[in-house]
Amino acid sequence: VRIVLDTLGSDNPPAEIIKGGVEAAKAFQVEMVFSGDGKLIEEELKRYPNVRFSIIHAPEIITMEDSPAEAVRRKKDSSLVRGIEALKEGTTEAFVSPANTGAVMAASLLKLGRIPGIDRPGIAAVIPTLQGGKMLLIDVGANTDCTPENIKQFAIMGKVYCQEILRVENPTVGLRSIGAEKHKGNKLVQKTFALLESLEGFVGNVESNWLLRGEVDVVVCDGFVGNICLKAYEGCAEATIALLQKAIRSSWLAKLGALFLKPVLKDFKQEMSASRYGGAPLLGVRGTVIIAHGHSDHKAIKNAIGVAVNSVEHKLVEKIEQGILKYAETPCGSLQRTI
Amino acid sequence: VRIVLDTLGSDNPPAEIIKGGVEAAKAFQVEMVFSGDGKLIEEELKRYPNVRFSIIHAPEIITMEDSPAEAVRRKKDSSLVRGIEALKEGTTEAFVSPANTGAVMAASLLKLGRIPGIDRPGIAAVIPTLQGGKMLLIDVGANTDCTPENIKQFAIMGKVYCQEILRVENPTVGLRSIGAEKHKGNKLVQKTFALLESLEGFVGNVESNWLLRGEVDVVVCDGFVGNICLKAYEGCAEATIALLQKAIRSSWLAKLGALFLKPVLKDFKQEMSASRYGGAPLLGVRGTVIIAHGHSDHKAIKNAIGVAVNSVEHKLVEKIEQGILKYAETPCGSLQRTI
Repeated sequence: VRIVLDTLGSDNPPAEIIKGGVEAAKAFQVEMVFSGDGKLIEEELKRYPNVRFSIIHAPEIITMEDSPAEAVRRKKDSSLVRGIEALKEGTTEAFVSPANTGAVMAASLLKLGRIPGIDRPGIAAVIPTLQGGKMLLIDVGANTDCTPENIKQFAIMGKVYCQEILRVENPTVGLRSIGAEKHKGNKLVQKTFALLESLEGFVGNVESNWLLRGEVDVVVCDGFVGNICLKAYEGCAEATIALLQKAIRSSWLAKLGALFLKPVLKDFKQEMSASRYGGAPLLGVRGTVIIAHGHSDHKAIKNAIGVAVNSVEHKLVEKIEQGILKYAETPCGSLQRTI
Repeated sequence: VRIVLDTLGSDNPPAEIIKGGVEAAKAFQVEMVFSGDGKLIEEELKRYPNVRFSIIHAPEIITMEDSPAEAVRRKKDSSLVRGIEALKEGTTEAFVSPANTGAVMAASLLKLGRIPGIDRPGIAAVIPTLQGGKMLLIDVGANTDCTPENIKQFAIMGKVYCQEILRVENPTVGLRSIGAEKHKGNKLVQKTFALLESLEGFVGNVESNWLLRGEVDVVVCDGFVGNICLKAYEGCAEATIALLQKAIRSSWLAKLGALFLKPVLKDFKQEMSASRYGGAPLLGVRGTVIIAHGHSDHKAIKNAIGVAVNSVEHKLVEKIEQGILKYAETPCGSLQRTI
């Protein structure tokens, strides 16, 4: 397996991103293709002997502030655009980027195109549950305004991902809302509920607290709500750890207790940390594209590459194509028109 | 100050709700009016001598499953409807209920009416921040679909609440979105941003992690997004505590550490607990209405009554009326039409 890693345009310097790529190459026995400033990459890789790699020299940077569609059109020699092109040409099998999410999405749509039957791709985030399991939230930010048909397509892609990559048999699907009852939610959710009722495994509306308990495998929503949810979890986890640390510092007895608790607290912090779940697949485009968090450190990058390897090995794109065909046999709005 | 407490229709039995009312009567030196099953209330209050109280005998129950508008029309003898009526008649100064939120909102609109200049009331939640301060999130569930004008009105009411009740000078207002830049967010957020730009104290879009850091005083959004946020915080706080407890149970050394840490962990749990921040004011109706969580225990009820007392003492409804008039002088959509 050959995987392109976009080394520019994230919040961290290229050296940190490259370190993650090197660790992934060793851990997953894959060949890395580093896209970015060729000289800088070569210099950096001198520190890691015995790593098989190649370089795409594409020194232009798409920044977090760039307008996605325009940047993809104008910055033809950027690490992001050239990386996606390498995937398109078939010389590599997956693309991983911690850069501007909108630009990754725009370049993927422009260069790779959509899987037939999918109107809008969605970004899926894997969220840890209290039982130590995993739950998929889709869409977490690709589309700020969605139709009920878009959300049904997210549901189908989420089911396939859960089955093929997370190895869950007959995954259940919930619709993110603000109450369990059918009539609860805004107009979009109510219309989507009606459309999802015919989907195998649909369990109705779900609220946030059930979701972290892992009572459902896939949760769907529009990208605005999904991103709000994801950021709320991240923000709250961060806040909780800070509050706990403050509480511990408040007395010497607590400090003593914390000393004994140290290994447990360290594990706990890691469990809550976003870097363990570094990669969010962009589902619905014709190619394996994994989006990493803009703040990704080397561990998060390594994990994002792990997600890419898993997706390639399980032929995720093909499986989604088959899933869309299968569920399109049941009535499903725009799906039947597109195929 | 006389405050009506709705004792029926929450997830907890009336005895638990009444206990909260009794504690509030003692703590805040107020007279409680218990609305509900008269016999049951009288029986229960025998356990608490020396408490001044009166009873509204209204034994009908509006359940969590009832359709709000219909229930308010049909169940004329319910503790909820009769309680709001007592507020309307002016025999009491505030109404507190842990029952069906939609029904509290519907009854308030029907019986009390709106403050001039307000198209839709909003529910405001007070959220603790990392600095030990407080932040106001509005709307957290009264309106699932909103216009930009509705959200601007939430912003004005939130500013007034922050200033008068939380005693913050010149409160800042942020718009809940998925990125700081002006163009980030869905169509509703983009239109609202344009409308809020002229509002004093508006700081632009805010994300979740900044919000818990307390970098802004009031955060506005539609009620669907606000409820999703609030539930995500609750769910995540619950999950964090459970994960920590699990981690502690995993080794004897950790258990020993936890023993020393016990008082701190207890404080921490309380800090995270929803019951400390029991009451969410329904802003924009002509009367002081406080909505408590459906799971409220006696502590949460006591705190919700505390919020009611504070609102009455600071003449919140009058102050909102004045705030709307003040900000209506600056261009503000439907606001000028209504006044």
